[in-house]
Amino acid sequence: MSIREVELEGHIIDSRVLPKVFDLIMDMDGDFEVLDFEIGKEKEDESYAKIQIRGRNQGHVDDIVSELHRHGANLPEIEEVEYERAPADKSLPRGFYSTTNHQTYIRYNNEWVEVERIEMDCAIIIDENKAICKPISEVKEGEKIVVGEKGVRVVPPERPREKSVFEFMSSHVSPEKPSNSIIDQVANEIIKTKKSGGKIAFVLGPAIIHTGGSKHMASLIKNGFADVLLAGNAVAVHDIENALYGTSLGVNLETGEPQAEGHKNHLYAISEIMRSSSIENAIEQGKIEKGIMYQCEKKDIEYVLAGSIRDDGPLPEVITDTVKAQDKMREAIQDVDLVVMMATMLHSIATGNLLPSHVKTICVDINPDTVTKLTDRGTEQVMGIVSDVGIFLPKLTEKVLKNS
Amino acid sequence: MSIREVELEGHIIDSRVLPKVFDLIMDMDGDFEVLDFEIGKEKEDESYAKIQIRGRNQGHVDDIVSELHRHGANLPEIEEVEYERAPADKSLPRGFYSTTNHQTYIRYNNEWVEVERIEMDCAIIIDENKAICKPISEVKEGEKIVVGEKGVRVVPPERPREKSVFEFMSSHVSPEKPSNSIIDQVANEIIKTKKSGGKIAFVLGPAIIHTGGSKHMASLIKNGFADVLLAGNAVAVHDIENALYGTSLGVNLETGEPQAEGHKNHLYAISEIMRSSSIENAIEQGKIEKGIMYQCEKKDIEYVLAGSIRDDGPLPEVITDTVKAQDKMREAIQDVDLVVMMATMLHSIATGNLLPSHVKTICVDINPDTVTKLTDRGTEQVMGIVSDVGIFLPKLTEKVLKNS
Amino acid sequence: MSIREVELEGHIIDSRVLPKVFDLIMDMDGDFEVLDFEIGKEKEDESYAKIQIRGRNQGHVDDIVSELHRHGANLPEIEEVEYERAPADKSLPRGFYSTTNHQTYIRYNNEWVEVERIEMDCAIIIDENKAICKPISEVKEGEKIVVGEKGVRVVPPERPREKSVFEFMSSHVSPEKPSNSIIDQVANEIIKTKKSGGKIAFVLGPAIIHTGGSKHMASLIKNGFADVLLAGNAVAVHDIENALYGTSLGVNLETGEPQAEGHKNHLYAISEIMRSSSIENAIEQGKIEKGIMYQCEKKDIEYVLAGSIRDDGPLPEVITDTVKAQDKMREAIQDVDLVVMMATMLHSIATGNLLPSHVKTICVDINPDTVTKLTDRGTEQVMGIVSDVGIFLPKLTEKVLKNS
Amino acid sequence: MSIREVELEGHIIDSRVLPKVFDLIMDMDGDFEVLDFEIGKEKEDESYAKIQIRGRNQGHVDDIVSELHRHGANLPEIEEVEYERAPADKSLPRGFYSTTNHQTYIRYNNEWVEVERIEMDCAIIIDENKAICKPISEVKEGEKIVVGEKGVRVVPPERPREKSVFEFMSSHVSPEKPSNSIIDQVANEIIKTKKSGGKIAFVLGPAIIHTGGSKHMASLIKNGFADVLLAGNAVAVHDIENALYGTSLGVNLETGEPQAEGHKNHLYAISEIMRSSSIENAIEQGKIEKGIMYQCEKKDIEYVLAGSIRDDGPLPEVITDTVKAQDKMREAIQDVDLVVMMATMLHSIATGNLLPSHVKTICVDINPDTVTKLTDRGTEQVMGIVSDVGIFLPKLTEKVLKNS
Repeated sequence: MSIREVELEGHIIDSRVLPKVFDLIMDMDGDFEVLDFEIGKEKEDESYAKIQIRGRNQGHVDDIVSELHRHGANLPEIEEVEYERAPADKSLPRGFYSTTNHQTYIRYNNEWVEVERIEMDCAIIIDENKAICKPISEVKEGEKIVVGEKGVRVVPPERPREKSVFEFMSSHVSPEKPSNSIIDQVANEIIKTKKSGGKIAFVLGPAIIHTGGSKHMASLIKNGFADVLLAGNAVAVHDIENALYGTSLGVNLETGEPQAEGHKNHLYAISEIMRSSSIENAIEQGKIEKGIMYQCEKKDIEYVLAGSIRDDGPLPEVITDTVKAQDKMREAIQDVDLVVMMATMLHSIATGNLLPSHVKTICVDINPDTVTKLTDRGTEQVMGIVSDVGIFLPKLTEKVLKNS
Repeated sequence: MSIREVELEGHIIDSRVLPKVFDLIMDMDGDFEVLDFEIGKEKEDESYAKIQIRGRNQGHVDDIVSELHRHGANLPEIEEVEYERAPADKSLPRGFYSTTNHQTYIRYNNEWVEVERIEMDCAIIIDENKAICKPISEVKEGEKIVVGEKGVRVVPPERPREKSVFEFMSSHVSPEKPSNSIIDQVANEIIKTKKSGGKIAFVLGPAIIHTGGSKHMASLIKNGFADVLLAGNAVAVHDIENALYGTSLGVNLETGEPQAEGHKNHLYAISEIMRSSSIENAIEQGKIEKGIMYQCEKKDIEYVLAGSIRDDGPLPEVITDTVKAQDKMREAIQDVDLVVMMATMLHSIATGNLLPSHVKTICVDINPDTVTKLTDRGTEQVMGIVSDVGIFLPKLTEKVLKNS
Repeated sequence: MSIREVELEGHIIDSRVLPKVFDLIMDMDGDFEVLDFEIGKEKEDESYAKIQIRGRNQGHVDDIVSELHRHGANLPEIEEVEYERAPADKSLPRGFYSTTNHQTYIRYNNEWVEVERIEMDCAIIIDENKAICKPISEVKEGEKIVVGEKGVRVVPPERPREKSVFEFMSSHVSPEKPSNSIIDQVANEIIKTKKSGGKIAFVLGPAIIHTGGSKHMASLIKNGFADVLLAGNAVAVHDIENALYGTSLGVNLETGEPQAEGHKNHLYAISEIMRSSSIENAIEQGKIEKGIMYQCEKKDIEYVLAGSIRDDGPLPEVITDTVKAQDKMREAIQDVDLVVMMATMLHSIATGNLLPSHVKTICVDINPDTVTKLTDRGTEQVMGIVSDVGIFLPKLTEKVLKNS
Repeated sequence: MSIREVELEGHIIDSRVLPKVFDLIMDMDGDFEVLDFEIGKEKEDESYAKIQIRGRNQGHVDDIVSELHRHGANLPEIEEVEYERAPADKSLPRGFYSTTNHQTYIRYNNEWVEVERIEMDCAIIIDENKAICKPISEVKEGEKIVVGEKGVRVVPPERPREKSVFEFMSSHVSPEKPSNSIIDQVANEIIKTKKSGGKIAFVLGPAIIHTGGSKHMASLIKNGFADVLLAGNAVAVHDIENALYGTSLGVNLETGEPQAEGHKNHLYAISEIMRSSSIENAIEQGKIEKGIMYQCEKKDIEYVLAGSIRDDGPLPEVITDTVKAQDKMREAIQDVDLVVMMATMLHSIATGNLLPSHVKTICVDINPDTVTKLTDRGTEQVMGIVSDVGIFLPKLTEKVLKNS
């Protein structure tokens, strides 16, 4: 039998660190003894626990400690972080520390240094006195890569104290909850974020356009409720198709009927932009006078259109290289406080991968699968709402504009 | 090789009989020759076709003809219908004619007699000069049961000519169609049906109440847009829970938050009704002053609350015997022109089983499975809309009341 | 501000009582101070906590305590339980204690008495020195009904210690987990339960028959792995249809092709049974020689066929009164140790409603909705597996028979 | 009122052209008269119909004819195709002919020329005496682009005559069909295709690996049943993770349990490949000795790994530019006879977009949405099977290997 100790500190009840630690030890077939325990008397107080972990052998106990560490348990000894050099470009040394999406610090030169740009499944690079989180694709041969858990501290987010959609919901909203109050709460979250100077990103799928949501989303942008837009080629193409011809995929968005020859409209829309050589130019030339892309340009909103193998065209602003697109998305969501994902599995999961766990995230989709997959892949902070964006978005827009 | 002839008559193009006949022959590995074909010159004209079916042997060709017959192909000879006596109660003779849900006639005493109360998967009983469709559960020993296809004619419905939700939709509405125009069309269908003196049945699941739809549905009833209500115990219990305590399953429908001790409310609601010994009495006594059940009683709307093994209580008006409940439902939907099903798989499929194919049927559910199953089980006329009833119903109600 | 104290005792970490209590207080906007805390040193030791709850006023703090109580927190004072008389048949007094599905005790005549037949959303009746859990439908005027939480103790189940499918899974198995090992673990759970003398109930939907699973399920029954069968009319009808004609809903189960005239087969099957006046007689008369119903009769397995409004027939053994059917189901699952639900939403939820929380429950369905709804409705112990029963059941049967 | 005539020729019943034409005219609110009609006496004979279309005005009737044309109706006059020059790169002239995915011919220099590389939503380029289908992204300024429908003939596929999975299934297989016979039929289709010298493409999602399917798919490749593999980075990464460490996303594929530190394995796998600078090299160096990628390299199977914004790494062989990836996929599926798609929405829809309608296509997914979306987007030939690939693929592999 082998033994190691871990410490838990801070809001270990609010952040659910304590129960998760107990669960994990038992999941991994370990044993434990609580050596010391001081619970904050009041809910604002910090708590402290020292727990002795026992395993079958050193490897077993190390595995358990390593897993606990990812969830906020720390080794009591304060030791310097350890690193190794990257053996090659895009290559990580054995034993590298793989990041969580929680706030993370390393002990470097006797100081706790916060890791910048934290994101799950990446490596921590030590660059002079800075610690930077980098995806494997950006790792260069010879960079100092953190290995092991020594000198690394992880701080999972606390559960929000204020009454909010995030507290109210338990990670997954069944379609059997009162719709009106859910929309109210999402609207309030958006308003509150903007009032406190926060930044909001919207992640959109083309169903937004097909269901007639272009004008509603455009109105949110126009009124300052969107700071970043993440989408694919299809959102832009059909938004512009709608602006130019009143259709989406050839279906008239007023009548719901397919327009004669309408199946060509999205290709006409692409052709039109191609002749202007960019969406931006087309708007400047006055070709496009409404819609999501129009408002993005007018309000100078940052948008990233990421390419996919399903694209027609694609439009000139679309970043067809997926690695570059991912980088641009990563850049765009820095300092974002709230992310609203609607009707896209691909872009929602891709964005979820890049988000730190403290960023509030709402995902609205008619397919419960999208929410399940987001959570399964580690974006556990997401609040999933199973609803029909075609009716949800107009209602949400109305409430945001009315209540703000 | 064996040979038989069938005739097709009437609007065999509009009703899609012709293409279905060709398909079926090929599906069943048969061969055919078109002996005679006169197509209606204009779309209003009737057409006529005589087709020779060839099969490997008599059994094979009979099987094909039998299948074609169910889809509207007739034998050219006009012969009297044949029948046998039911061998026992709830028992059918070998070779009995199993009904489709299409309009059906039998040749009896040299006259074409329409089969009353047509419904799929039943038997035709000859009672004096009448032909009545009966489920196996109602068959009595000794009754005259139609056997074989001789003297039976099936008339599948034509596709609707007027512009309507039924023409516009192709059996299944993806959640990627313009929401606004879909709701408009359903609203128009409801208004049109009532304007022309038609009868509308609503089939509801409890999610209607949980999502805050009680007042909207109540308003549709109050304003005369519902003639029949089919639901289960849970709809009534939670509607009354909402009327009495403002909650559904303990969740406050205004704030969306669970009410303290709210989980007892549905049992209080049941207790309250039990003390009045019926919903009707409770309303008369002034205990309940709003909601779906209240409006049903006030407007004297026919409702059937059918029991299920999931029920708490159940309320006194609930018909706990499923055979009796089915009979009541069957009774209630006679002469209905439009059925709107919302958020219930069990009651939607059960009602679908009882409906003739010419009754317009709309099914709104967030789970596409409900629509798929309805269609798979033979309710092919259903127009499925995959949406969130929590937002769909208020919007629909608003449109119906505004446009009517 | 008002104040009350609660105590937590026992395996409050294993049973997740402690974290849930902290969460609930914060959810309900309360405040707390931990007055006393002794954590079991080792994982087998019991722990103890005394927590002071603070609320805005007496009502608020009472609401919080009441909610905590349902999850295993107790009032420190040991007081006698309180009761009131039922005001009418099927009617509960104001303030009645509404049961959870956890093991429950009442303090009556200075003794802790375990509540018999515990099941969620019911009342506790005191009958001489016994405490019995009863659904509202069985409550008689004048019976002693427990009110308030005084003298009531709730003991939530601990998480299982042994390695098992229940530990391995986190309530919901995504279809992205290794299929082979999941089936292995379910098979092991079945084998283990039988080896230790336990009782297994199967809850089945008709898709089991339509996908060709009749012989596999029959084989599990024949080999002694099923003690109770819960299903509806359709399972029995199509199982017998298959035994008599080799089809299910007219589709040949070997070739997968619809059989000519096959759509009549299920009505022939019903007719056949009706002429024998029961399934049991038909089997005795040698009409049926294989399948699920055949094995149930041969092995004298208890089965409950509960009626629904979708039924054709129904067969004589089907209990058409849903209240009586529910009672029979309740009876049948007493002392069951493992429940395996497959491909039925209605019967799974109905059975889930009746189960104590300590009964291990597995639900296999291709529709993730079934699992979500089961959990949302309080059957939190369920382990959901999203898979295709058509391939899952044969594989499971093979493994159970091979490994046992 | 305006009038135009169209002709239908060939197997207009088998190909369902005739009924579709009648439907479309009525959908579009037109009128018609059948001027001439000769139906093939026997099912092998060709038929002929001349139909007069009437509309409200010239525009209306043109719209109708234009729509009919896309479904195989031809103008009776044989006229030369018309073209215009592309106004710019990636830009199409007004009125360009937008392709269907059906076999298409143009009348050029008095000859019927078949359009090469036909694919939906593209343009037809005339290049000397050849007609080539090109996506808008490949159109160059000045190229001759076909406009209007004059001189264009579309030949929709006939329904297959032989008994096969495609005839048996009606576009969507519910999970309530006999599983065994479905797998048999898919296996037979694969065997038959290879026996007749055909080419099979597999389109795979990572769930194939997570559910333990790597070895089964590898075995299909090894035994010559796959000619082309289309997938994303994740399939390759996790297949290699499994080959190197026995895990997929850190989960041990034998035991189903998460491996300690396993969450790093996919990044180790990427690192390993990066150090070899390609999958190919890593295999040559003996690092990888089993799995899908291994067999692809050993059997020299063409594979396309297309990048997406969700990728980690990505691996060197992944084509990160989505336009280039699409081109490679387009190239790879030329002359493919059968496509089997499993567990991926993105790659299935992307591949479906590129396929001519005569290529047999099977899609297996647990999410019915994938199949619905494929069909909604025009890949109407797809046969959807809602099942669990984790159990489906091993069973399919077993049958293919045993029966071939």
